[in-house]
Amino acid sequence: MPKRATPSDRPEISLDASQPVPLYKQLYERLRGAILAGQLPRGARLPSTRTLAAELGVSRSTTALAYELLLLEGYLESRVGRGTTVSRTIPAVLVNGSATRTPAEAAGVANPHLASHVRPLRDVPNLEFVEETAGGPFRGGQPALDLFPYDLWARLIARRARRSMSEYAYYQSAAGFLPLREAIAAHIGISRGVRCTAEQIIVTTGTQGALDLAMRTLIDSGEAAWLENPGYFGAHGALVLRGARPIPVPVDRHGLDVDAGRRRCPHARLAVTSPSHQYPTGVTMSLGRRLELLEWADEVGAWILEDDYDSEFRFSGRPLEALQALDRSNRVVYIGTFSKVFFPSLRLGYLVAPPALVEPLLTTRRFVDVHVPILEQLALADFIHEGHFARHLRRMLQHYARRRDLLRRELRTHLGGLLDVFVPEAGMQLVGWLRPGIDDVRAATLADEVGVMVLPLSRAGLEPLPRGGLLFGFAGTDEEGIRNGVRTLAAALERL
Amino acid sequence: MPKRATPSDRPEISLDASQPVPLYKQLYERLRGAILAGQLPRGARLPSTRTLAAELGVSRSTTALAYELLLLEGYLESRVGRGTTVSRTIPAVLVNGSATRTPAEAAGVANPHLASHVRPLRDVPNLEFVEETAGGPFRGGQPALDLFPYDLWARLIARRARRSMSEYAYYQSAAGFLPLREAIAAHIGISRGVRCTAEQIIVTTGTQGALDLAMRTLIDSGEAAWLENPGYFGAHGALVLRGARPIPVPVDRHGLDVDAGRRRCPHARLAVTSPSHQYPTGVTMSLGRRLELLEWADEVGAWILEDDYDSEFRFSGRPLEALQALDRSNRVVYIGTFSKVFFPSLRLGYLVAPPALVEPLLTTRRFVDVHVPILEQLALADFIHEGHFARHLRRMLQHYARRRDLLRRELRTHLGGLLDVFVPEAGMQLVGWLRPGIDDVRAATLADEVGVMVLPLSRAGLEPLPRGGLLFGFAGTDEEGIRNGVRTLAAALERL
Repeated sequence: MPKRATPSDRPEISLDASQPVPLYKQLYERLRGAILAGQLPRGARLPSTRTLAAELGVSRSTTALAYELLLLEGYLESRVGRGTTVSRTIPAVLVNGSATRTPAEAAGVANPHLASHVRPLRDVPNLEFVEETAGGPFRGGQPALDLFPYDLWARLIARRARRSMSEYAYYQSAAGFLPLREAIAAHIGISRGVRCTAEQIIVTTGTQGALDLAMRTLIDSGEAAWLENPGYFGAHGALVLRGARPIPVPVDRHGLDVDAGRRRCPHARLAVTSPSHQYPTGVTMSLGRRLELLEWADEVGAWILEDDYDSEFRFSGRPLEALQALDRSNRVVYIGTFSKVFFPSLRLGYLVAPPALVEPLLTTRRFVDVHVPILEQLALADFIHEGHFARHLRRMLQHYARRRDLLRRELRTHLGGLLDVFVPEAGMQLVGWLRPGIDDVRAATLADEVGVMVLPLSRAGLEPLPRGGLLFGFAGTDEEGIRNGVRTLAAALERL
Repeated sequence: MPKRATPSDRPEISLDASQPVPLYKQLYERLRGAILAGQLPRGARLPSTRTLAAELGVSRSTTALAYELLLLEGYLESRVGRGTTVSRTIPAVLVNGSATRTPAEAAGVANPHLASHVRPLRDVPNLEFVEETAGGPFRGGQPALDLFPYDLWARLIARRARRSMSEYAYYQSAAGFLPLREAIAAHIGISRGVRCTAEQIIVTTGTQGALDLAMRTLIDSGEAAWLENPGYFGAHGALVLRGARPIPVPVDRHGLDVDAGRRRCPHARLAVTSPSHQYPTGVTMSLGRRLELLEWADEVGAWILEDDYDSEFRFSGRPLEALQALDRSNRVVYIGTFSKVFFPSLRLGYLVAPPALVEPLLTTRRFVDVHVPILEQLALADFIHEGHFARHLRRMLQHYARRRDLLRRELRTHLGGLLDVFVPEAGMQLVGWLRPGIDDVRAATLADEVGVMVLPLSRAGLEPLPRGGLLFGFAGTDEEGIRNGVRTLAAALERL
């Protein structure tokens, strides 16, 4: 017998008749959101349309229409004698909260007291799904892990483990190993135009560690921050965790729409952006927009977090410098990572802070984790200083360009009628925009059923997007995988 | 000409005539605190006693008496024609904020907007001073780094780097490498009586990472938490960073005084304690107190963070189980670290959560740093599984017992008149209590001048302590270092 979602464990739903969005649509959005967040687990039984209508004080046609849409899209199932239940076939990759029935709930322990951000944070997509799903093609954020020089890396690690650990066994600098920071400063100065000294660099636990550290230091709980919509869920999560208020700002073909941001919330304390290769759309922010953004930040005293997560891989055009390079007012915190050029489980990234922020960031850092482990920092410094880094980067660039071009061709050939492919100038992934009206979550569900991992863009949206899309990571999928993946996907999407 | 501390950059001082503490004493405490926190930098000029008395609305004898005490203790200097200034001879090790003139201030940039915790967080002592001071004897929190089997460790690291990295290159579990968590569960089950499964364990960036993660998940900004007084500054800092309200609870010879906590703040959300070997006093919490603490937590629904940082090293008596082992209500989060059995720059620790808290902690964790680097986790799991861990622990226990006994003897011989030595049953450090009335900061200053590193206990106090003391780390100082260190110290303290 399926479990009945009783009012007490069902997410609270409140509809607002004064909003321009029709009530059935509001209800549909709420239920869909609750299903994707795992608040309504697979198999959970919903109340009848009549009961729910009475509970919410709306007409039965409103609840019936919302249910019908969700049935059509496969979020709900309905069988005679069983009523309406949440579909059991929604793949785990879409359901962020598939495991979010807390053990407390499972064990029957009454509501434990938790910090207030925990509940909303459960609704933000995160990287956890990668543990559950084996490596299908097009996984996002994955470099060519098959082409990394593991032997070379192992030699550098072994050398440092053998020779250097006793020297560096005690607590080390909260900012990171100085020779590594010097190597990073030199690298991003040349490749990204970032202007800084090693003193401005703080080594972090990847991009996430940098986002979290910067947000904790620069914005208070309750204050507002601009987030790109769609945008990176890691930044969204760090902001919710901070207790701050996310203001979604639309992204168009020029990047973050600064005027829209000014209209929505002129005095935000902070803006997060990925100007070189916007996540997930792939757009490069225009120079005009960059200057507008910097002007706004200077005007209101806001901070800009520039997430430059994969722009080392630039295929065409004169490399556009980082936003940080244009910043005359010391408003930009630049964030880089080694997850893409190396591999994610290395957990090394960094931020470049304006001079005035170095000490406040370190003050915070000392009580977060003191510093990141020293061994990888030592070996990475060697890797860069000995020239391996630049060599590996060049080699990957060629591979990724080839993979990107192949993916583009294959998508045009096999899915040209359905997907409008946007070819980015940089990075490791591209977007295929769906024809307006097609639900990208439904498309991603069909893809998942045949083992193809594409992220629906609406999952990276803070509010509904004008158009759905699918995000394809191409860097970590080899040529054969790309060809097979696209064909398999094309067959699956015929059911759309 | 020394810089005059003008009202605007001087810390705000407010005195409260309704308190039992006399006004001159309150003023003395405030000024001393401001000097130690670096808010009143070395060389800063203070207003005359007459001016300050007028500003504060107190009698001139009040300000004069406070100044006189500070002059006597060496915090202030007074010269004809120069007025009263902050002493230039206070060593950096004592002045936490000695470098806390922010670059912003230095560069003349007007107040950058920062999160509100940053300023108070600067006043909390942290580990940073270890970077500035070369390794004198008795450094706290330092294991016998000269006796660690680096070659063995390097072999295990090299093997994993060579064989396993490609398999574990993508994002890994936020909770940590499962075989490591299994090894930890087995180890603490046997050695500390902790009752848990591997599923309850989350691998963290040392103790600090565990404290920070737990506080971010379990307490909201503005809520109150009990901290031991004196207590661990890392816990204090994590709480201030969280924006929570620290409630100092006195520690006596039975450990945390639960009744005092109830009187001060009965409905705190959380309590931090180190029952096995209290930091810094070394007291083992009595069974009665343990049961009182658990009863309180159960009664008000509070969480207990048990920081079991160094109790693997137990020299005598039946090993007292962890507080967690007595907990029938799932209120205790147990925190352990490898910084003491391995070395601090490994940055690996863990927490054991009650089942209901595992999911909320992981929800937070995914947006803090995703997970800790994988390589050390792999090698550490091997190290434990292959029996090296237990062997190393036994070997260190013998060394530490010998060093502890030697230190005790030397202190009694050379400093018996001044220090009342408390010999702990466990751990890596001991306290020498000073005769009442002797300022431990002054004593530590004298020690620092001759290269001996002892932490004045008042630096670990959230409010004035009834008696000062000096903390001696003995684990990381060899026999010769102990003998010479005590003699050097005894000579220096003759100036007290």
